[in-house]
Amino acid sequence: VKYDLILVGFGNVARRFVDLLHERRRQLARDFGVDTRVVAIITRHGSAVAPRTGSAASVELDARRLARVVAAGRRLESGAPPSDPLGVLDRALRARRGAAKQGRLIVVETTTLDIKRGEPAITHVEKSLAAGAHVVTANKGPAAFAWDRLSRRAARANRRFLFEGAVMDGVPVFNLARDTLPAVSIEGFRGVVNTTTNFILSAMEAGREFDAALSEMQAAGIAEADASLDIDGWDAAAKTSALANVLLGARMTPADVDRHGIGGITPARVAEVRRSGRRLKLVAEARRDGKRVAAGVKPVELPEHDLLAQLGPEENSLLLRTDLLGEIAIVQRSSSLTQTAYALLSDVLTIARGR
Amino acid sequence: VKYDLILVGFGNVARRFVDLLHERRRQLARDFGVDTRVVAIITRHGSAVAPRTGSAASVELDARRLARVVAAGRRLESGAPPSDPLGVLDRALRARRGAAKQGRLIVVETTTLDIKRGEPAITHVEKSLAAGAHVVTANKGPAAFAWDRLSRRAARANRRFLFEGAVMDGVPVFNLARDTLPAVSIEGFRGVVNTTTNFILSAMEAGREFDAALSEMQAAGIAEADASLDIDGWDAAAKTSALANVLLGARMTPADVDRHGIGGITPARVAEVRRSGRRLKLVAEARRDGKRVAAGVKPVELPEHDLLAQLGPEENSLLLRTDLLGEIAIVQRSSSLTQTAYALLSDVLTIARGR
Repeated sequence: VKYDLILVGFGNVARRFVDLLHERRRQLARDFGVDTRVVAIITRHGSAVAPRTGSAASVELDARRLARVVAAGRRLESGAPPSDPLGVLDRALRARRGAAKQGRLIVVETTTLDIKRGEPAITHVEKSLAAGAHVVTANKGPAAFAWDRLSRRAARANRRFLFEGAVMDGVPVFNLARDTLPAVSIEGFRGVVNTTTNFILSAMEAGREFDAALSEMQAAGIAEADASLDIDGWDAAAKTSALANVLLGARMTPADVDRHGIGGITPARVAEVRRSGRRLKLVAEARRDGKRVAAGVKPVELPEHDLLAQLGPEENSLLLRTDLLGEIAIVQRSSSLTQTAYALLSDVLTIARGR
Repeated sequence: VKYDLILVGFGNVARRFVDLLHERRRQLARDFGVDTRVVAIITRHGSAVAPRTGSAASVELDARRLARVVAAGRRLESGAPPSDPLGVLDRALRARRGAAKQGRLIVVETTTLDIKRGEPAITHVEKSLAAGAHVVTANKGPAAFAWDRLSRRAARANRRFLFEGAVMDGVPVFNLARDTLPAVSIEGFRGVVNTTTNFILSAMEAGREFDAALSEMQAAGIAEADASLDIDGWDAAAKTSALANVLLGARMTPADVDRHGIGGITPARVAEVRRSGRRLKLVAEARRDGKRVAAGVKPVELPEHDLLAQLGPEENSLLLRTDLLGEIAIVQRSSSLTQTAYALLSDVLTIARGR
């Protein structure tokens, strides 16, 4: 099956995704019968849309060339006013109605998280599903703010809305629960899901300063551009909200998460906790509480034998408390751009396998 | 869909499975459209086979009543000579040809592991697939000795051969790799997969004697009846062989695993390792080595920060080394009969979802 891809957002993750599709082209054809072509790239700084008719070469974009254009700091060319990405998306969806009707249109959403409202990602998802496209996204916003509405909309349209990359990159979390734990009820979870804060706390244990550790994470491209998203716990809260909505059936937003960041934590405090044989981690947590779901993100002094206490500076982990399997944990031992890009690829393959 | 189940083996795991089906009956119908009935129970100590025709009640067995019969130490009644379980299986499969043709017949294999040849479990699996039944098993033997042959046979017959319970009970390992890591290549794995040896080594760290710890595991029903299967590393070797065959495409048997048990390990040695800041664990390991797969099971002195070193006495974990996701780990934090029984249920639901 040949899928038409509309890329909304074309930053590092989307560009690595384009490379990954190219590197794995033969494997995807052989093992999954999947071929892809990029038919539109839409960003706030310009867009590129392939014409609907013409030669095989002209109806798809040379996405790898365009990735180099953007990486070099130049704008994508486009006939559309670059300030109107929603309009470009509307037109691109309309132009690919045929592929959408056949379930061959996938919108790959990788805009950055807006922690206030989850926009414009939610609108991108809604428009795409309404037009008959599947949606895969690495953005936490849609699941964190509007999982219930969007998942119902996807089900009605008989299309998929997938976001494995929203938590722990491509390491299976949402797919794990959906595909490998049938009939299991998840009663709660605890996790370390933000790498920047985990790295900073670990660095302070080793005697380093907060700001130096943060700078290192920013230089590595792991910290959010707006560092307060990490430090104040917003990134972890968005992940917690997405997890609680999907795994526990909550209907919350990041604002409903009882959130405490690590901004006020000093190296002295970290050292003192460490001396007492404990470890300080930013722990994301949620549990059913009658019909409600209570969720929080806060620095916790963990006893040394706690699985979360033992995580290294760049490791993430999620522990699920279940009815039939007791507690199980999944651990991500390192992170990379490839892992986030793979999350998008695994979602595309989930769509293909579900046909 | 109503599945007919033939239970081969009716020990603790199969009996808990029967209870679980009963407890979850409404959920399975509501969420998966699945109903089940047990039509035959076959053991070395007697069998029970429901007639093929008659009233709805008479064509299925009251498996929960029969479980109480067996738990009380009494024999299953049967017209067949109890010494011929293979003959009873043949006849039961023939009698249920109709259900088999419709993909509604599942053989649930829970005989105990034969570490020499994997029999009679392999024969049970082959006969069942040949008769058009799906097979789910908690026995490590078939995948450890004959994965390649049996998986091909299942594919040809368009039936499933599933064994999630062979490693880490119902915690997803095989399902994790198959369903949530599309296009990911697993290059190797390391794990602690035998609870009895892990418990004994942990107990010796705490100053206890080998034999006392082993007795405790036997009393809890966790150690194998033949303790040497655990102590000499055979159980771990069978799991390693199954994992290597399925995840790495090896074609090995447990005898091909470079196997070292914990029989010679003294409390003094364990204490000495612990004092040096390391932990002794029985580590199962395999990796691709050119076209070969090298696999081993042996006691390893692990540095304290190693994820496997940090496992508690009753925890298991498997670390997968992958091309696209780096290293990921799944951790089982406790084990129970329900977890093993759930493995069988999850396999049944995998069959139902694949229709």
